[in-house]
Amino acid sequence: MALISIIPDFYPTGDTRLLARAEELKPTLHHTIREPMGAFKLKERYSKEKNDIVLHQLPHITMGKGENICLDFGEHQVGYVTLDLTYSGSHPDAPAFLKLKFAENFRELSENSLEYSGWLSRSWIQEEYVHVDVLPARVTLPRRYAFRYLKITMMDTSPKYKLLVKHAECMTETAAELEKIAEPDTGDEKLNRIYSVSLKTLADCMQEVFEDGPKRDRRLWVGDFRLQALTNYVSFKNYDLVKRCLYLFGGSRFPDGRVSACLFTKPTVEADDTYLMDYSLMYVVALEEYLQETGDEEALNDLYDIAMQQVEYALRQCEAGDVVNEQAVKDTFIDWGDELEKTACSQGVLIFALRYARRLARRRNDWSQANWLLQRQDALRKAAYERFWDEEKGCFVSNGQISIASQIWMVLADVAEPEKAAQAMRKTLEEMDEPAMQTPYLHHYYVMALLRAGLRDEAIAHLKNYWGGMLDVGADTFWECWDGKDPDRSPYGGSVVNSYCHAWSCTPAYIMDRVLFPHS
Amino acid sequence: MALISIIPDFYPTGDTRLLARAEELKPTLHHTIREPMGAFKLKERYSKEKNDIVLHQLPHITMGKGENICLDFGEHQVGYVTLDLTYSGSHPDAPAFLKLKFAENFRELSENSLEYSGWLSRSWIQEEYVHVDVLPARVTLPRRYAFRYLKITMMDTSPKYKLLVKHAECMTETAAELEKIAEPDTGDEKLNRIYSVSLKTLADCMQEVFEDGPKRDRRLWVGDFRLQALTNYVSFKNYDLVKRCLYLFGGSRFPDGRVSACLFTKPTVEADDTYLMDYSLMYVVALEEYLQETGDEEALNDLYDIAMQQVEYALRQCEAGDVVNEQAVKDTFIDWGDELEKTACSQGVLIFALRYARRLARRRNDWSQANWLLQRQDALRKAAYERFWDEEKGCFVSNGQISIASQIWMVLADVAEPEKAAQAMRKTLEEMDEPAMQTPYLHHYYVMALLRAGLRDEAIAHLKNYWGGMLDVGADTFWECWDGKDPDRSPYGGSVVNSYCHAWSCTPAYIMDRVLFPHS
Repeated sequence: MALISIIPDFYPTGDTRLLARAEELKPTLHHTIREPMGAFKLKERYSKEKNDIVLHQLPHITMGKGENICLDFGEHQVGYVTLDLTYSGSHPDAPAFLKLKFAENFRELSENSLEYSGWLSRSWIQEEYVHVDVLPARVTLPRRYAFRYLKITMMDTSPKYKLLVKHAECMTETAAELEKIAEPDTGDEKLNRIYSVSLKTLADCMQEVFEDGPKRDRRLWVGDFRLQALTNYVSFKNYDLVKRCLYLFGGSRFPDGRVSACLFTKPTVEADDTYLMDYSLMYVVALEEYLQETGDEEALNDLYDIAMQQVEYALRQCEAGDVVNEQAVKDTFIDWGDELEKTACSQGVLIFALRYARRLARRRNDWSQANWLLQRQDALRKAAYERFWDEEKGCFVSNGQISIASQIWMVLADVAEPEKAAQAMRKTLEEMDEPAMQTPYLHHYYVMALLRAGLRDEAIAHLKNYWGGMLDVGADTFWECWDGKDPDRSPYGGSVVNSYCHAWSCTPAYIMDRVLFPHS
Repeated sequence: MALISIIPDFYPTGDTRLLARAEELKPTLHHTIREPMGAFKLKERYSKEKNDIVLHQLPHITMGKGENICLDFGEHQVGYVTLDLTYSGSHPDAPAFLKLKFAENFRELSENSLEYSGWLSRSWIQEEYVHVDVLPARVTLPRRYAFRYLKITMMDTSPKYKLLVKHAECMTETAAELEKIAEPDTGDEKLNRIYSVSLKTLADCMQEVFEDGPKRDRRLWVGDFRLQALTNYVSFKNYDLVKRCLYLFGGSRFPDGRVSACLFTKPTVEADDTYLMDYSLMYVVALEEYLQETGDEEALNDLYDIAMQQVEYALRQCEAGDVVNEQAVKDTFIDWGDELEKTACSQGVLIFALRYARRLARRRNDWSQANWLLQRQDALRKAAYERFWDEEKGCFVSNGQISIASQIWMVLADVAEPEKAAQAMRKTLEEMDEPAMQTPYLHHYYVMALLRAGLRDEAIAHLKNYWGGMLDVGADTFWECWDGKDPDRSPYGGSVVNSYCHAWSCTPAYIMDRVLFPHS
């Protein structure tokens, strides 16, 4: 997730008790040393052509001015890099001046960052310029990187010496223990691979919080978090990390109690000045799902009121005719892009969240609240059906627009009876092109909606087609952004800032484990 | 000094006893905290126009993408910089990406390093790109810089925040204690200022060794060292630092015993593969001058043989007709530039050094050596007079070329009787243009030769004119390179790598104290 919202003079709340509890739940991070699995030189600095280097010869390959050596760590890494550098020739009489470029995939290696002019900060490009004053040197870079490839370019030496990369390693960092997870056995090779890569994606995003992406924004976003938590339940089962994130979101919020769409944890915990109604409602969903997994009474007691605040705030946005108002629609994310008409989606997410809110109220024995929520859910569902279902077209129409997203959220909200839901979802397969789904986040809910409408084969086909499409172009973690028709697409005006290991892409393992093959 | 010599498979000697003694003599470095004395913004990134900032408002000046803030530390600094950075606006949602450029003078600030294409390594340009992941932050840069100005350019933030430079400081580092030196009182304001700036120059070059320049090469060169030692004797009187350098040069040499022109001290002490005959002879001179100051018997005992080796090696280069051979001339530095015909200079430096070698032999009671050296000196002097003195022209001519440099070294070697020396030196003032003197190193010897020829007023005038010329263009330390007719000159093909605090420029204080006003 990445989004720009600016509220002047924003002072989020800080609940010391909740934040202290979150601090206690900080995970142990696991570290492993990884070494390169391959190496090559790019023929030119920004070329895609390469000359392979036999790995054991790497320590003997000299680098003069302008030359490069690329290290391939075999798969995606998140961690800290150490280089052992030395020289050949005379004693170095000038510093070594290096450029280091960390790339999550091969394509990034050959991109010239100077040409990037997108709207997202270029400060996310994982590049460093380093001067090494004394050689030999062990250079440990202080920042964490997300990468598979490291391109080392010799900006300058002096005529007296050339540089040698004697050794390189990455100390990986994650709160997950991927090596303890058994190999998947779905009976389908592609699904097995999708399963594995989705867990690798999640593992690399599991740090001191569930990060949306370890390259960028390296931050806790509610929408991504809920999907990570689900996938975590079928794999790493790190319940404390989920609980920690629930407490963090509860611990720093908008002054009126709303859960922020995302949260900073450094230097101190602070809610971002970004409100997304669907994300704040996913907080309610995530809390209820966590309680399903754990039955954790403490969390229920501490966070119930916060969850209800989210629902009540959203419900106040649909007092007129039981349909969400303009502000609610404006505050709803659903997917990237300006073309999507989001009224039906916004209403759908709210109804969907009410299902989980009611369960929370029942857990809490808060029967009057549960009753009220049921009434509101029924009213919103009824209003949604009347407003959005188009009998003639056989699908949902949101203010004149037919979109896959509207079908997804109306179906997930159970607005229509099962046959109509199936009819609408079938239409998404047959005739709905524009506006296209843009994020893996929405693609997740698409698969869930297909399944809810009983279209199991279609759901599996979409899983294999969409996530499998990334595998076909060489992904070893799933991406922030993927469009098979336009593989180079960037929402930011330059793919060099795209995140190629992104949490909201990690759900295939969850979908397979819990929904497709629950007893396998 | 900067020069490129490459000898393949060069294995310098390492004398553990001498090097251990050098290690014991490592100086205490003194540290002081300095804060900016002024601040401004350059109107454009590479412009020389600026808008001044009132210093106490600095912490409130925001920096958005592409903006710069320049800090002026008031005078030249050598040390480590710490920046306290914070932000205004929303919580930073992307790293701050900064470029830091350290500049010894104002001109460097507006130079675009990307345009540098000289032969000296661009790795010497004092620029860093820094990512700050978490704000507020205290950023302490690990490298030492030589600078007066620091330009901070905001390469990128994000629309959500702007950067603030709350505080900046430099922890200076030097082995000298400049604050203990009394103000000069020559009775001439310009000479007073030249005196002070020459000591500031020396102080900033006095580190763990006498560095040639704290920006570049940050290294011990014999020629520069001898001049630093002289100036140190009239000011900081750090005899141990001189002794340490003498032991270092003695401790790692060419396999055949020659003293290298320069020395690396990190990661371990290692002679460079550069031999300059005049520099190795200056080792002899520097040792004798050190003994004049200190009478240090230990140094005499330890280093006498090494000094004699230098002289004997050089003397073997003039066995035919008592004139230096081609190899000796090739191995002689004297000054930058290819135009200078160096035979007379090379011969002159050798005769000059023999004077000091004889004194060493007498100190050591090595009378047969002293005698032999006297004979060789006489023979070389006689041969030089016959070969280079041109009675008709009234000056020295080296293989057809008349140069100031030839007059300097013939005069300093006492090759001609005093009247002829004066005549030759007067001619340098009147009619010798090309090849022009290029380095302050040679200008030092020019002043000394004027004085040796009895031209005291002319020596003072040159001191005021040459070193004073740097003051007139704003120098607060003396430069590696200065030509009043071409103030932007660089020997490297780009002035951005020039060193503006360079040890071989530091001698005016010595000249004034010991030679011009010895009893003031």
